[in-house]
Amino acid sequence: MCEMNETIRLPFSEMKDVFFRILLQCGMAKEKAETCAHIFAENSLEGVYTHGVNRFPAFVNDINNHFVLVDQEAELKHSVGALEQWEGNLGPGILNALTCTERAMNLANEHGIGCVGLANTNHWMRGGAYGWKAAKAGYAFICWTNTIANLPAWRAVDCRLGNNPIIMGVPYQQEAIVLDMAVSQYSNGKLNLYKMQNQQLPLPGGYDSNGELTMNPAEILTTERALPIGYWKGAGLSLLLDLLAVILSGGLSTREITGRKTEYGVSQIFIAFHLTKLPNYPTLSQTVNGIVNDLHQSIKIKGADPILYPGERVLLTKDENRKHGIPVLKSVWDKILNMA
Amino acid sequence: MCEMNETIRLPFSEMKDVFFRILLQCGMAKEKAETCAHIFAENSLEGVYTHGVNRFPAFVNDINNHFVLVDQEAELKHSVGALEQWEGNLGPGILNALTCTERAMNLANEHGIGCVGLANTNHWMRGGAYGWKAAKAGYAFICWTNTIANLPAWRAVDCRLGNNPIIMGVPYQQEAIVLDMAVSQYSNGKLNLYKMQNQQLPLPGGYDSNGELTMNPAEILTTERALPIGYWKGAGLSLLLDLLAVILSGGLSTREITGRKTEYGVSQIFIAFHLTKLPNYPTLSQTVNGIVNDLHQSIKIKGADPILYPGERVLLTKDENRKHGIPVLKSVWDKILNMA
Repeated sequence: MCEMNETIRLPFSEMKDVFFRILLQCGMAKEKAETCAHIFAENSLEGVYTHGVNRFPAFVNDINNHFVLVDQEAELKHSVGALEQWEGNLGPGILNALTCTERAMNLANEHGIGCVGLANTNHWMRGGAYGWKAAKAGYAFICWTNTIANLPAWRAVDCRLGNNPIIMGVPYQQEAIVLDMAVSQYSNGKLNLYKMQNQQLPLPGGYDSNGELTMNPAEILTTERALPIGYWKGAGLSLLLDLLAVILSGGLSTREITGRKTEYGVSQIFIAFHLTKLPNYPTLSQTVNGIVNDLHQSIKIKGADPILYPGERVLLTKDENRKHGIPVLKSVWDKILNMA
Repeated sequence: MCEMNETIRLPFSEMKDVFFRILLQCGMAKEKAETCAHIFAENSLEGVYTHGVNRFPAFVNDINNHFVLVDQEAELKHSVGALEQWEGNLGPGILNALTCTERAMNLANEHGIGCVGLANTNHWMRGGAYGWKAAKAGYAFICWTNTIANLPAWRAVDCRLGNNPIIMGVPYQQEAIVLDMAVSQYSNGKLNLYKMQNQQLPLPGGYDSNGELTMNPAEILTTERALPIGYWKGAGLSLLLDLLAVILSGGLSTREITGRKTEYGVSQIFIAFHLTKLPNYPTLSQTVNGIVNDLHQSIKIKGADPILYPGERVLLTKDENRKHGIPVLKSVWDKILNMA
């Protein structure tokens, strides 16, 4: 392994502190910088390096280029009872998403279900962060975002769809079960990570320059023809997530974001469901335990890794990274230290 | 082609009339039989034969075996503002789903968004039917159902997950854009259809008895190891759709349904979004047109079929079947006529 790819391990607090200082330098107010730094470090602690430490330099660039406006906040634009539209004012995506997650939960407190459509916001980094937050607070939760075009329609060569991630979370014991998936087989972050580590993908993740399915992440990043999950199904899901995000938020579509060349001003949806007033609430944890236990009792393919529910690996990684530090490529960390 | 597989074409009205008469004989009240017959014929007219004419005999069997109770109706069980739980009382799935779609739309009229969790209902046949209904009525709409276990978890051999279809619809011109997808690469209905027509699948759809991916539908139906869309992603999506359906409806999980051996008493969710009160409503059709036009302008893979939005083929098939009649295997139709 070349020195460039050497991995070091850092404590959560050290990583967060460096992020915090850099964000202050970028002009972010103290409390906001603290929150953003926390989420970036937590995403890394929980193993989503692609949307944590590895993505931090791009976030700082977006601030410096005024795609992300550090002093702007999300605000209520229009209310229809349990459904609200918020304007993101191009503020930091993490802060806007936290505000709207909170607001969807409050709407759910009042109406049983609450939905916030957020327009003109920025990349929320790891969508799962909001799923974990809401589910750990006791809500069922769904959220999704659109993105710049980075996925072709089914049977198409050029990218007109986003890999629009969708997140679904429910409470489970003191933690949560959280699905956090982009509709491409591998997210761009994952493709970049495999490429950075000179590894092949475990399964075909897109097309090479001959139009054949390939496991080479670099080829896919070059052709820009990532594979949607389930071929036509993931492509269709992407389109509907974009349509719903745009219609319900009044914000920009993947098409319009793509027209800007740089991804900013995306549209997001946050839906929270209040659970404690449901008649089945008293037996809910028993129900969820039953489903998880059943899943864990699956008969494994010979030699396969354990069978996990969505989010289970997050907890395992978190434990490991707490003990041993958060792994980060030295080259990435040096780049970040140079920003401080 | 052997005579068994001869295809005939029937007018919508003739097909519906035969369904109607059989359902009356099954003890269904006139108006309900009329509605069920209409949906079965319409699902067929719109090309979803697997959940229309081909599935009709199984529906009649379920009535005769008292899994579907023809005289039972869905009723309100609990209300939390915009979120309601309904009890399906094991009534016909189509009628219960229509009732709850309607109810979700009415809740959305009142609260901006409306959600109905329906417990102890039966197979709704084609979930898209409810997506089309709501979207054509001017709502954005999401619904899903759980099923009996028919899909293995990721890395597992045995089935503990359902292929839980999810439907998303939005209004488009006088029609709608409707995604209607099971989380398996091919639904059981599709696998049976390919098998019935002695055809291979166009892409791998599950595992053979050696644990290798295969395009042979009969092998997959034997091993019962269908492939989830996006491998671990579709498996995760299935689990979360089940969890959310069960938590929000208070109904049975895939695990509990599977314990009954026969699929009945499933759990479903219906979410409607009211659109006319949104500030972006006046430009909404322009926005959706823009997205669809952009999709249609994709550069096609050489020689590929046209690029369509989800639901576009439904309209093409509907036109063709209106002109030429609904295609049905003679063997299937003879079986149905024998029930009349």
